[in-house]
Amino acid sequence: MHPETHEYYMQQALKEAQLAFEADEVPVGAVVVLNNKIISRGHNQVELLNDSTAHAEILALTSAYSSLGSKYLPEATLYVTLEPCLMCSGALYWGKIGCIVYGASDEKNGFRKHIKAEQSPFHPKTEIISGILQDECTWLMRNFFQLKR
Amino acid sequence: MHPETHEYYMQQALKEAQLAFEADEVPVGAVVVLNNKIISRGHNQVELLNDSTAHAEILALTSAYSSLGSKYLPEATLYVTLEPCLMCSGALYWGKIGCIVYGASDEKNGFRKHIKAEQSPFHPKTEIISGILQDECTWLMRNFFQLKR
Repeated sequence: MHPETHEYYMQQALKEAQLAFEADEVPVGAVVVLNNKIISRGHNQVELLNDSTAHAEILALTSAYSSLGSKYLPEATLYVTLEPCLMCSGALYWGKIGCIVYGASDEKNGFRKHIKAEQSPFHPKTEIISGILQDECTWLMRNFFQLKR
Repeated sequence: MHPETHEYYMQQALKEAQLAFEADEVPVGAVVVLNNKIISRGHNQVELLNDSTAHAEILALTSAYSSLGSKYLPEATLYVTLEPCLMCSGALYWGKIGCIVYGASDEKNGFRKHIKAEQSPFHPKTEIISGILQDECTWLMRNFFQLKR
């Protein structure tokens, strides 16, 4: 896989999601990419940290802010295995992220459920790409919740 | 002022907002109250922390989760001087907060701008109260942005 493709970076986000899965966390993973380099990684740690804000995207974003010393990421792309929720969408808005690439859709908690059609939650310049490695991302979630039953 | 009134706790949130103001941060403050006791406080620290997720509500929530060892706050009330943005609304949803009391409205970034009328961003059991000490909360914001011009 070419390291500059969306699939390559989504595979890296899936690796993070797998770490969450193995830790019995809802398996969502994210990476932030700047100039073809991964500058931060995160996976859901809500249970470990006992913190319902500790979603993959929030952890990857705050790690990126910290390592760059900047609170904005207009040149960066966030790859995440699941459609962002409202909280994470809001965080991505404030961070002025350049591009968001997500894998699986989230009918229950994804941003598209709540948002008025004419009111994107994101920064006007943010590009949104969906469905990258959708099957793999969806499979991991389904598998997790099936094991929980 | 009676310590069990909404005005009393909003005054405490305003004290936090004042700390933000003095630090040249957008002046928003929050407190989390459980059983008539303030269990955490937060004020906007986006500039200090170089982190665009460091809103008053997020800091107050994560501090409450940490001190209680719980990721949910169904019995608690969050007082915040400004209408929560989408990110903070999402965080309050995940935290299953019992009640949200806010002061000033936020036409630009408040949750009501983006959300479909039939799709509350909050947990079904979360109560929302607005307009407590609205004038004081609004004045602090206006004053801050006027000084910035």
